[in-house]
Amino acid sequence: MSMNSPSYDLLVIGSGPAGQKGAIAASKLGKRVALIDRGDMIGGVCIHGGTVPSKTLREAILHLTGLRHRSFYGSDYVVKDKISFRDLAGRVLQVVEREIGVVRDQLRRNGIDLFAGTARFVDAHTLEVEGAGEVHILKGERVLIACGTRPARHPDIPFDGKQVLSSDQFFQIEGIPKELIVVGGGVIGLEFASMLTALGVEITLIEQRPTILDFVDAEIVEALSYHMRRHGAIFRLGEKVTKVERDDRNRVVAHLESGKRIHAEGLLYAVGRQANTDLLKLEAAGLEAGARGKLVVNEDFQTNIPHIYAAGDVIGFPSLAATSMEQGRIASCHMFGVAARMNPALLPYGIYTIPEISMVGQTELSLTNGKIPFEVGISKYEELAKAQIVGDLTGMLKILFHPDTKKLLGVHAMGENAAEIVHIGQAVLTLGGTIDYFRDTVFNYPTFAEAYKVAGLDGLNKL
Amino acid sequence: MSMNSPSYDLLVIGSGPAGQKGAIAASKLGKRVALIDRGDMIGGVCIHGGTVPSKTLREAILHLTGLRHRSFYGSDYVVKDKISFRDLAGRVLQVVEREIGVVRDQLRRNGIDLFAGTARFVDAHTLEVEGAGEVHILKGERVLIACGTRPARHPDIPFDGKQVLSSDQFFQIEGIPKELIVVGGGVIGLEFASMLTALGVEITLIEQRPTILDFVDAEIVEALSYHMRRHGAIFRLGEKVTKVERDDRNRVVAHLESGKRIHAEGLLYAVGRQANTDLLKLEAAGLEAGARGKLVVNEDFQTNIPHIYAAGDVIGFPSLAATSMEQGRIASCHMFGVAARMNPALLPYGIYTIPEISMVGQTELSLTNGKIPFEVGISKYEELAKAQIVGDLTGMLKILFHPDTKKLLGVHAMGENAAEIVHIGQAVLTLGGTIDYFRDTVFNYPTFAEAYKVAGLDGLNKL
Repeated sequence: MSMNSPSYDLLVIGSGPAGQKGAIAASKLGKRVALIDRGDMIGGVCIHGGTVPSKTLREAILHLTGLRHRSFYGSDYVVKDKISFRDLAGRVLQVVEREIGVVRDQLRRNGIDLFAGTARFVDAHTLEVEGAGEVHILKGERVLIACGTRPARHPDIPFDGKQVLSSDQFFQIEGIPKELIVVGGGVIGLEFASMLTALGVEITLIEQRPTILDFVDAEIVEALSYHMRRHGAIFRLGEKVTKVERDDRNRVVAHLESGKRIHAEGLLYAVGRQANTDLLKLEAAGLEAGARGKLVVNEDFQTNIPHIYAAGDVIGFPSLAATSMEQGRIASCHMFGVAARMNPALLPYGIYTIPEISMVGQTELSLTNGKIPFEVGISKYEELAKAQIVGDLTGMLKILFHPDTKKLLGVHAMGENAAEIVHIGQAVLTLGGTIDYFRDTVFNYPTFAEAYKVAGLDGLNKL
Repeated sequence: MSMNSPSYDLLVIGSGPAGQKGAIAASKLGKRVALIDRGDMIGGVCIHGGTVPSKTLREAILHLTGLRHRSFYGSDYVVKDKISFRDLAGRVLQVVEREIGVVRDQLRRNGIDLFAGTARFVDAHTLEVEGAGEVHILKGERVLIACGTRPARHPDIPFDGKQVLSSDQFFQIEGIPKELIVVGGGVIGLEFASMLTALGVEITLIEQRPTILDFVDAEIVEALSYHMRRHGAIFRLGEKVTKVERDDRNRVVAHLESGKRIHAEGLLYAVGRQANTDLLKLEAAGLEAGARGKLVVNEDFQTNIPHIYAAGDVIGFPSLAATSMEQGRIASCHMFGVAARMNPALLPYGIYTIPEISMVGQTELSLTNGKIPFEVGISKYEELAKAQIVGDLTGMLKILFHPDTKKLLGVHAMGENAAEIVHIGQAVLTLGGTIDYFRDTVFNYPTFAEAYKVAGLDGLNKL
């Protein structure tokens, strides 16, 4: 081995949630780890254009619009009268910079060597890293591919990064549009649509399928649609965009297959993502990518080349930061002989729409399809003191349990703190608790957590 | 029995958290229940002057001061420039009125007969209720005393409801004082002191004991003191107030035993509470009250007269709404033959200071005293994306666990959402989980709940 090709126990491609946690887990096991990412992309899409900026934008919008406080100060209450994009973007930038610092610091404290550049396979144990005018050759016993994805670029959509944007380009926008077309009713499309709706942007959401968020409790999806519509959003479901162009007033026009034309100041295209594997020269390692560049892995996150693992968005659904982190950690544990597995039935989903949605376990639909009987316990936020105090009177918690064994089967939450409190139910679900747990437990008052007590007693009263 | 003395399975005295939940639990068991409270006190002190208004005031202060957003917009950022007491009180009044409605509605839906007036024992099964010019005689198989407490009135303190106030009188205040003396460093005193400090009031807190919140993790108490001092609070611990009077500029002066004199616009006296049992003619039922009018009960909440139960603040520590609710429910279950017990080791504590504090299980001190070895896992909020996004960089989560069995022993949280997320650890503690649970579980990103993952991995790395 030459001076120019240092050797590692693990080479990690990508510094997003999967890559970071994979690298750190290996380092904690005493392994030598190199992590490669483009210099300006530390933290991955999660920090740059994805989760972190969009959730920060959401928080800034909730604050500056005063939305949470309108049940006290009236429906016309705002904290700031004219909200500019600068008001919002400043906060986003600060958080992004702090988060980059946090990630860099964690990698440094764990003794992980960071290489800035683009990685390409030379062979199944060798990567060439090109960046900042330098080329490094790195050798690795094992490789973790966590290279992430980028928005899929549909050839018919005339992206310009100003009026017609992919979701990763959103933060390049120059001002807040009066109206915006959002194409795609998946998690990303809905998160943007609901927060911009809250900001007063007139949103038209176009989705090819006739429904949205099929994996979420139907009652909660209906409530989300209701709240978004109340804020002015228009849903065009079961509609396909055939062409996007400019009209003579330089506005964007989306042509739908049904013949409709929708005009707006801008268009956000949030349909599908393409894995970055096309940049990796996979064939040099004996790997092959599937549809949209995604990699197929087994339940230990191994590709068809056993010492090469993949984790995070590059392996597809659910493509949530939390899950990706755990995939990266489990991959590193497995490759170095530490037992670890992920139970997909216990994965939480957090959707940062307005209102926030979160769930874990089964839905009413999946239980019905599986012919498993269930009973429901519900707590409406409006009956909780905490919800009255913070002014969220629209949220709810729904727990599903088996009527005979009383075992908890699923937890579905909507509203303030939904993504936090779902973890209380998740612990009961994971540790095999029954709905009696909620009856017998004291919950701080006033909290949203108290919803479990109310829902538990409601459910037990039905037996 | 005459027409004038209707007979019930249960008579409940007081409609605060203990009385409400006790009455509802009995009603769910098919029992006939009468609930007695003064007409203007539905919901008890919890709604009137206590928990609900103080937590609403806290939320209003956090919003209008913009405190949560200062890490983004600068330390001089405010949402509203001149915050009047009216700005704050309006929101409090709305929430109090909504909560009264929620309580009335719950009692009505459960078919509970409500009597407005003051209750007095005639004998151990009979109450005389006097109110609104009417007198009712009610007979009951069983009685639940949940009459609550009122601030103890020290004879040397010249309460006037304007400048010198008990904690229940706080909402009668006419304006926001520039400086305020708070006497009493218990939960109530600290909650008021920290929220008024956040509002810019110059607080001097006087406490007779040399320390505050002895049952709370020492590191968290130190951090609370630090943050309150940074906002300008002055602590005078181990100091006793001997006299309170007015100076010649009509300001309040508190004389301390140490010879100090403290001048301020107002004084809030938050030391000790006196049970309302003196109004009940206990002796007619064969009952006797202890110190400060408190009633002594066994672990089934029975007094020395077995068919008479007591729950809530009237039985003393911890006097938290959440615990009182459960006491009321358990008392009703026990009196009607349904098994239920409370495990004091699993009770959560929620303290709504700024920052918020919450805990469940053992502390480092109690473990050390009990000669139980423990290891610690810590997550600082500043390393969490969620904390960066909402701007709380000072919070923390600390978990204590046994180094051999890895069983969770205690959870201590400070900062945004502390009182919510403590319930995740509580579920693991109650269901006998180990710290491995936090390693193996996926937490939504970004959330505060994620702190458990970080703290869990931190703890495991120390083994």
